[in-house]
Amino acid sequence: MMMYNCAIKEVRTKFEVLNDDLATAHNRNPIEMIKSRIKKPESIFKKLLRKNYEVSMASILENINDVAGIRVICSFVDDIYEVAKMFISQDDVTLLSVKDYIKTPKENGYRSFHIIVSIPVFFANRKENIKVEVQFRTIAMDFWASLEHTMKYKKDIDDADSIMRELKECADVIASTDIRMQEINKKLHYAKPSE
Amino acid sequence: MMMYNCAIKEVRTKFEVLNDDLATAHNRNPIEMIKSRIKKPESIFKKLLRKNYEVSMASILENINDVAGIRVICSFVDDIYEVAKMFISQDDVTLLSVKDYIKTPKENGYRSFHIIVSIPVFFANRKENIKVEVQFRTIAMDFWASLEHTMKYKKDIDDADSIMRELKECADVIASTDIRMQEINKKLHYAKPSE
Amino acid sequence: MMMYNCAIKEVRTKFEVLNDDLATAHNRNPIEMIKSRIKKPESIFKKLLRKNYEVSMASILENINDVAGIRVICSFVDDIYEVAKMFISQDDVTLLSVKDYIKTPKENGYRSFHIIVSIPVFFANRKENIKVEVQFRTIAMDFWASLEHTMKYKKDIDDADSIMRELKECADVIASTDIRMQEINKKLHYAKPSE
Amino acid sequence: MMMYNCAIKEVRTKFEVLNDDLATAHNRNPIEMIKSRIKKPESIFKKLLRKNYEVSMASILENINDVAGIRVICSFVDDIYEVAKMFISQDDVTLLSVKDYIKTPKENGYRSFHIIVSIPVFFANRKENIKVEVQFRTIAMDFWASLEHTMKYKKDIDDADSIMRELKECADVIASTDIRMQEINKKLHYAKPSE
Repeated sequence: MMMYNCAIKEVRTKFEVLNDDLATAHNRNPIEMIKSRIKKPESIFKKLLRKNYEVSMASILENINDVAGIRVICSFVDDIYEVAKMFISQDDVTLLSVKDYIKTPKENGYRSFHIIVSIPVFFANRKENIKVEVQFRTIAMDFWASLEHTMKYKKDIDDADSIMRELKECADVIASTDIRMQEINKKLHYAKPSE
Repeated sequence: MMMYNCAIKEVRTKFEVLNDDLATAHNRNPIEMIKSRIKKPESIFKKLLRKNYEVSMASILENINDVAGIRVICSFVDDIYEVAKMFISQDDVTLLSVKDYIKTPKENGYRSFHIIVSIPVFFANRKENIKVEVQFRTIAMDFWASLEHTMKYKKDIDDADSIMRELKECADVIASTDIRMQEINKKLHYAKPSE
Repeated sequence: MMMYNCAIKEVRTKFEVLNDDLATAHNRNPIEMIKSRIKKPESIFKKLLRKNYEVSMASILENINDVAGIRVICSFVDDIYEVAKMFISQDDVTLLSVKDYIKTPKENGYRSFHIIVSIPVFFANRKENIKVEVQFRTIAMDFWASLEHTMKYKKDIDDADSIMRELKECADVIASTDIRMQEINKKLHYAKPSE
Repeated sequence: MMMYNCAIKEVRTKFEVLNDDLATAHNRNPIEMIKSRIKKPESIFKKLLRKNYEVSMASILENINDVAGIRVICSFVDDIYEVAKMFISQDDVTLLSVKDYIKTPKENGYRSFHIIVSIPVFFANRKENIKVEVQFRTIAMDFWASLEHTMKYKKDIDDADSIMRELKECADVIASTDIRMQEINKKLHYAKPSE
């Protein structure tokens, strides 16, 4: 697991550098926050079994793509695509897959831009390519997703259907408000600063 | 300014303790993030002049309430009032004033719960009561406020009126979505966890 | 354990404030580093059994003084006594016991200044007085102690006696060098700064 | 300056990864602490003038090697050479120069292992090779160097000569104690852990 933790540190540093550069050169901080998590051993184990994969370290490295997860939370939707593009274009980042749940939201309303990349990490006496899942979201999408996530871990909910419908409606309102806020921001961006 | 920085550290620690306790005992993290800022010397100076106060350290300590500012960003509106109440009820926290811009939003749509408190800080050879402004907001209110804030520093905006109207509308949508999300959360809260 | 973690945060903040104040007002950073640790549940359990205490939360709070431990690492011996005095004299810090292993080193050469204090911590709905052990050391004492510590966890050491003798000698050399460095620092302290 | 700050972040992450790997795989933490500093604009300016270099950003990137400085503080002398070797052997680190003030201390007693490297940093829309100075020291060497450093900024010191002689003597005692402690550590390292 230490290996994945180190991969997270390397990817986090890459995003911090991008944010610092954009803050200095372009006077904007597209990244609001960076969160990270390591998948728990039991979840990895369950996933290996569920997918009929061998249970071994080599099998984890090859088959499980989301042991290391980073969440990059941006202010606006456009920031997501811009920062993701800058990150993917770096020499030592290999893009393995893309899932755009912003353009095509999940049925329940979930929105997020997911990529799996592989990056080299230099350990004491070897270099290893480690997979990392990066999820890009706006602040509002992230708030919605955290609520939707708690729903997964609950059962015996009265009105589960009506709650899901309500959640879906909130997701749509949030998505359209994100766009309206972004439009306002663009208009403000081109205005002259006050003295 | 060092004094105000230290006061911020003490207040931040108090909120971290509250959040840790609530996370352990009640399995919830009401506080999503804590941000802080120190008012710039030039802004303090301008404010002293504008309000016709003497320009001295003693005058700053007495007259300027928001040199040290902490922003406590919560998931839900109810969390704001609960965390604020816990904080205010602590022995060594003296509440000086309250402005509830959630119950009574500003005309432009601004929502936030502001308090001014005074807390003792122990320096090398003296104890000093320092004023700190604490702003409580939901994640969505904070996002809105950051956009509204950039508007203040811009001039020569075409359609300033229409942007302000649009911002106001977004504020209202955001406020009502916050309430809807809170209702969903309450319903989920009382449901049994899955096995 | 969360309670002890919170107590550590509060005490750490108090030392950071002292260091910031001394850095600004007196242009010196007496504290080089602050480390902390929570005693492991199994160690607490063993200690309760060894000392014939009841095994309960109340018993831990009353009988075990070093569940929460903070180490304050100073540059010079004089800093230790000065910082400790400032800390102890704070209104809300209650001094419970002192062991001065600098004035009276342990037989093996161990040097450190230990105090047990109790401080109030404000949780969600109660105030609790929590005990914290604070160990003050110079950088060199800390380095020595970390080596001596690894010795405790080893057995079957050839020449255990000669190693202990060698460690003891190093402790004495380190202590006298600490004093010489402190004397040099004092002489430099009173000299004028270059332009 | 932002560019150099980012380079420091990247190098710091590389050392943290090495330390994590060694801690997990070999149960040791060779790196005690990592400090960093950016050279102040006025110091850079003075150095450019003193060395008769052009005053421009391009000239800084080419001619000044220590704008970004990282200090890696290790427990033992052997750790220094081992960690330095691991770092230098990484694909994307280019070694530009080495100065070994441990093997050949400065006349005043200064000991430290210095290297200048260049590493690629990925900014928003370009990759830049940035120079970083890395200083490796033991804890004791670092403490000594910080005292020696304050001497440089003082003038009108009575007994400057005797202080310098005293400092030199302390440096030698410290160096020989470092070696003795390292020998003890080696002996302990090969002993069996207690149950």
